[in-house]
Amino acid sequence: MGSTFGQLFRVSTFGESHGGALGAVIDGCPPGLTLDLARVQAECDRRRPGQSKLTTGRKEPDQVEVLSGLFEGQTLGTSLALTIRNKDADSSSYLPFKDTYRPSHADFTYDARYGIRAWAGGGRSSARETAARVAAGAVARQVLETLGPVEVVAWVDTVQELEASVDPTSVTAAQVDANLARCPDPAAAELMEARIRAIRAEGDTVGGVVRAVARGIPAGLGAPVFDKLDADLAKAMISLPAAKGFEIGSGFAGTALKGSAHNDLFVPSSGGIATSTNRSGGIQGGISNGMSIEIAVAFKPVATIFQTQDTVNDRGEATTVRPRGRHDPCVLPRAVPIVEAMMCLVLADHWLRWRGQVGAPPSVPLRG
Amino acid sequence: MGSTFGQLFRVSTFGESHGGALGAVIDGCPPGLTLDLARVQAECDRRRPGQSKLTTGRKEPDQVEVLSGLFEGQTLGTSLALTIRNKDADSSSYLPFKDTYRPSHADFTYDARYGIRAWAGGGRSSARETAARVAAGAVARQVLETLGPVEVVAWVDTVQELEASVDPTSVTAAQVDANLARCPDPAAAELMEARIRAIRAEGDTVGGVVRAVARGIPAGLGAPVFDKLDADLAKAMISLPAAKGFEIGSGFAGTALKGSAHNDLFVPSSGGIATSTNRSGGIQGGISNGMSIEIAVAFKPVATIFQTQDTVNDRGEATTVRPRGRHDPCVLPRAVPIVEAMMCLVLADHWLRWRGQVGAPPSVPLRG
Amino acid sequence: MGSTFGQLFRVSTFGESHGGALGAVIDGCPPGLTLDLARVQAECDRRRPGQSKLTTGRKEPDQVEVLSGLFEGQTLGTSLALTIRNKDADSSSYLPFKDTYRPSHADFTYDARYGIRAWAGGGRSSARETAARVAAGAVARQVLETLGPVEVVAWVDTVQELEASVDPTSVTAAQVDANLARCPDPAAAELMEARIRAIRAEGDTVGGVVRAVARGIPAGLGAPVFDKLDADLAKAMISLPAAKGFEIGSGFAGTALKGSAHNDLFVPSSGGIATSTNRSGGIQGGISNGMSIEIAVAFKPVATIFQTQDTVNDRGEATTVRPRGRHDPCVLPRAVPIVEAMMCLVLADHWLRWRGQVGAPPSVPLRG
Amino acid sequence: MGSTFGQLFRVSTFGESHGGALGAVIDGCPPGLTLDLARVQAECDRRRPGQSKLTTGRKEPDQVEVLSGLFEGQTLGTSLALTIRNKDADSSSYLPFKDTYRPSHADFTYDARYGIRAWAGGGRSSARETAARVAAGAVARQVLETLGPVEVVAWVDTVQELEASVDPTSVTAAQVDANLARCPDPAAAELMEARIRAIRAEGDTVGGVVRAVARGIPAGLGAPVFDKLDADLAKAMISLPAAKGFEIGSGFAGTALKGSAHNDLFVPSSGGIATSTNRSGGIQGGISNGMSIEIAVAFKPVATIFQTQDTVNDRGEATTVRPRGRHDPCVLPRAVPIVEAMMCLVLADHWLRWRGQVGAPPSVPLRG
Repeated sequence: MGSTFGQLFRVSTFGESHGGALGAVIDGCPPGLTLDLARVQAECDRRRPGQSKLTTGRKEPDQVEVLSGLFEGQTLGTSLALTIRNKDADSSSYLPFKDTYRPSHADFTYDARYGIRAWAGGGRSSARETAARVAAGAVARQVLETLGPVEVVAWVDTVQELEASVDPTSVTAAQVDANLARCPDPAAAELMEARIRAIRAEGDTVGGVVRAVARGIPAGLGAPVFDKLDADLAKAMISLPAAKGFEIGSGFAGTALKGSAHNDLFVPSSGGIATSTNRSGGIQGGISNGMSIEIAVAFKPVATIFQTQDTVNDRGEATTVRPRGRHDPCVLPRAVPIVEAMMCLVLADHWLRWRGQVGAPPSVPLRG
Repeated sequence: MGSTFGQLFRVSTFGESHGGALGAVIDGCPPGLTLDLARVQAECDRRRPGQSKLTTGRKEPDQVEVLSGLFEGQTLGTSLALTIRNKDADSSSYLPFKDTYRPSHADFTYDARYGIRAWAGGGRSSARETAARVAAGAVARQVLETLGPVEVVAWVDTVQELEASVDPTSVTAAQVDANLARCPDPAAAELMEARIRAIRAEGDTVGGVVRAVARGIPAGLGAPVFDKLDADLAKAMISLPAAKGFEIGSGFAGTALKGSAHNDLFVPSSGGIATSTNRSGGIQGGISNGMSIEIAVAFKPVATIFQTQDTVNDRGEATTVRPRGRHDPCVLPRAVPIVEAMMCLVLADHWLRWRGQVGAPPSVPLRG
Repeated sequence: MGSTFGQLFRVSTFGESHGGALGAVIDGCPPGLTLDLARVQAECDRRRPGQSKLTTGRKEPDQVEVLSGLFEGQTLGTSLALTIRNKDADSSSYLPFKDTYRPSHADFTYDARYGIRAWAGGGRSSARETAARVAAGAVARQVLETLGPVEVVAWVDTVQELEASVDPTSVTAAQVDANLARCPDPAAAELMEARIRAIRAEGDTVGGVVRAVARGIPAGLGAPVFDKLDADLAKAMISLPAAKGFEIGSGFAGTALKGSAHNDLFVPSSGGIATSTNRSGGIQGGISNGMSIEIAVAFKPVATIFQTQDTVNDRGEATTVRPRGRHDPCVLPRAVPIVEAMMCLVLADHWLRWRGQVGAPPSVPLRG
Repeated sequence: MGSTFGQLFRVSTFGESHGGALGAVIDGCPPGLTLDLARVQAECDRRRPGQSKLTTGRKEPDQVEVLSGLFEGQTLGTSLALTIRNKDADSSSYLPFKDTYRPSHADFTYDARYGIRAWAGGGRSSARETAARVAAGAVARQVLETLGPVEVVAWVDTVQELEASVDPTSVTAAQVDANLARCPDPAAAELMEARIRAIRAEGDTVGGVVRAVARGIPAGLGAPVFDKLDADLAKAMISLPAAKGFEIGSGFAGTALKGSAHNDLFVPSSGGIATSTNRSGGIQGGISNGMSIEIAVAFKPVATIFQTQDTVNDRGEATTVRPRGRHDPCVLPRAVPIVEAMMCLVLADHWLRWRGQVGAPPSVPLRG
């Protein structure tokens, strides 16, 4: 039972890469939300394969269908089921991996856990499963927008050593989507695109870092000591395919600072309390403090490279593999909507939990 | 309901820093385990304050008492309740913070969420709550040891820029505990101790990175797509006080590599399948692959510095604070047993979940 | 988040009566099960409307489709998604209830909870939602059969005051399905059928009691103190539409007996321990004892009667309703597969939980 | 992990009859509640043994201690831990049951599940565990009272065939506690007391039915399709020791009525909608409708009788037992506060869940 996420806004996803359909069931969606399905579809379009020259050639329309939970355009408050049919599945290129484990893929570990795996298309371990997350996250985003002026924006911050310069307090979705790299720093974006093309030409792959920000989140979200807001964000992000690292606020770099240099000083702010810096990343003690919530997620280079590699088959014999088929040379541009979706899922769930526990916001004299 | 962790091995913790007691209730502990309480106490002793010159002066024996779930030395399989009484609580030094928010502490956010907080000793947001985690984790470790030859070892890997050189495949608990810094690289440990003493003399604080390894974990643990083993480890670690970053395997550094350099090649191994490198950190697709599970956790510098800082009170007015009392200049040595505890909790829970879903391990011809 | 059931074998259902589709996602199904889809369909056929003269005239093929989780006929261990498209939905007969609350229906309470409801066909509150439960339960039954020689049989035991005489230790599914009333006592069945036809002719409805038995369940299932096996059975049954009462073993009648007459004496049995009577209904202290698990569920008469009734509209004004459309005069024959399905869901979940917590069965010298 | 109950108001209990302590941890209690500990203690006093001539002679003060979650008299919103030390534990009378299974007790099934049991005092299977439920339920009651004018009252409705006549819409706690039988019908109470004394003189035991009502619950609580309000009440009640049956509203008796006689007609009511009868028991479609919530719980006769009975030991050999010690001849008077406690737990949890999902109550024009 590992495909369920959230407590009050609870999402269960399903689907293999080459199976009948992917989907998500949202149990606990607030009722009465006029759902903008076009925006849900738009988020899925940002994630779908074949959208640009930087991504895989698989052509999937990734058309979202609502099976339940919506009535005359409004959410009913009961289970909202979303599905996406698989269309362009070509299993033939996966035949060589039916009994051979691709390096740094989940072929071996799925066999180890389940004793069986859907080898076609990577099955459940395919990054294609994130399509269901994106659809659910797009609903969560609309829920958040009914609760407050929430903005969730992610972007590609680094590709290998190429690093963008982005201000998280002002970056916009339009800036992110202005180029194929989904990097709102145009100069860096250009370098990244060139890098990705060059690496694709080598039959190789690259990784990088996606950063994301949530603005407009009030102080008060997060449920210590385990379900801290940053802890649930960490889980959400590391649950993504290829994710190897997570940071909130100052992250690993912050460990080089002394406390006197790291602390965020509180300052009076119009109608509330703010901090003069934001090394906390908007979360203190596991609870949002009203500042921008800022995270980073490291994605390793895609495991599927078009080169011959040593490996082992499911009888334990040494052999080689050389993948064919359609794969991204760099997962990062398509990871942007996925990171946003997971962030929205965590925030929506915590907001509902908070409302459940304390009802109206507490009477803190001044809140940021 | 944020103080509950785990699905089958489920831990609920409670306790404020200056309240009556801290504790943990373990719901779902396997029955028939001959619990070595001395080892549970020993882990708590590794975490307790006042244990060395590098840590806070608070003197707490942190004596673990079992209230239920144990009969003639064996676990009953029903709720195992552990408590630790608070003894050396001196609330007077916290009086200045009753209405003033300490920078980068959780004072403000607890007020924002709950409208009330136990200001004495930091209340529930105090790192003292981790004593209950350590006690529960020490039970989880003994559960793991009945399941396999599991070793979980954490150590201080960096303090600021001071970095140790440690081999995760062989590092031992004895090496870690051989010095006050809990760094198994003696040369680095010496530098770290000196740094911590120097920083304490300044009234300042430092952070760093704890690394941890779990050896002896079979391939097969982890429940994609959300409850991936690394995702739950990430949540466990980021839920710790002062944690700002998490890495599995190659982490952020891995994003600089090409796929061809990053992939872990599978190789035949005596009686199983291994990988020639371990950039995956022992987890692929969210499931353990039989290699060592390797993580890193970034801890920011302790927020409580003995210097005057600008801040705001709970009426929104600018003011200053200058903490007194007993605080660690560096949380890292005491974080070591906490990281181990959380790792044990995650692994025990996932092992039971795996056993529940698939029963006997699946018939993969060769497993690492 | 109320449409999720189970811990390790976790089912999330969705779907309104006149929406796009009904369905269930099973998260945690054991892998490697060769799923007999024909049997899943057969269970749904036992529940579907229009199957006999005793039931509603709605014609729904209730065709089960698997969207994920199955590969070459075997379960993958990841989310198994099942859907049933709605076909013969005629919303016109529900127009009068768009703003008028049918007595003893959920029209009013859905409005009260959600502020919105899918009035067509009763929406989510329609008993049609149980189609998804039946599909999921049919999978659970096959899981149980891989774990032991489990038989789960339910039957119509009473219709109004008409009572059958049935031996729960030997009753078979074939006997149950031998007549339209699904009552394995042929004489009682005949009376029941006549009663149901007569009541339909009146435009009225009747209720009754379904009894069910699970045979072949080993001693040991159940997780006190809250997740007792009978407690979870009670929840499962009372969650069914129209269910008003639940009994395990001797139930309410047992309260008339003295302890000396009620106690089930233990007796040695070939290869185990048995009880000489079974007033416990196979469960003691919330844990199965190896005897037949015997429950009863009371179903009230169907609320939709074809008579004019006083009621109130959603503006609070007194008015009347007179339902039209296609409705069962008696829910009981179709409730039989639903009760079986819920029983299978509870048992499968608890079996997996048990296996997770204790692994191999404990070494009780003799077990029934 | 079966000792955890609730989703947002989540209670984990622990404790064996003769262990160190019983207790409950409430994770998710709303903050800022001024907890009246005297009332919590008073509820525990209503449950404790030795309170009257009708109950067991065990003398337990059952003193409630708060270990965490309370600060200057107010709940913090973080884990609220309550414990009750065991004092008057005399294990010697249980020695005969160390290896012999008492009929209709949980001795055998605990062995079957866990392979070990705390034979002294019945261990975890002792009804003494309900002390922790009562303490937690008393907190839940105070939470409910902050949410609305909620009254939860239970009473002994039958002892064997002796039946009281009680109006659930007006019965008061004072009437219930006016006699030792906790039956608010004085004439019936007198007969019940006499019966219980007579049966005790025989060394035998009796059962009966507890009824309970919750008044002041608004329409809208309950989370279909599984977490229906009545389904969770059913689980809560059947999880109680000795409970064998549950009814909501008309229960089993309602199955004898035709739909035309059973339906509750809606009628306009001052400021809302009411029903002219309440066979639904205040719940329709799993959601409260604003009328009184009325349930019944059947409790079998106590299993411990002071007579020699045939049984089997843990080697499977036929033997006999003759219990000694201190046991209730009738569990019902002491079950009253327990049933109330569980009802409060369910209602508080569902109220918080409702608030979480929909925030302010929906704009139904008129609600009861």
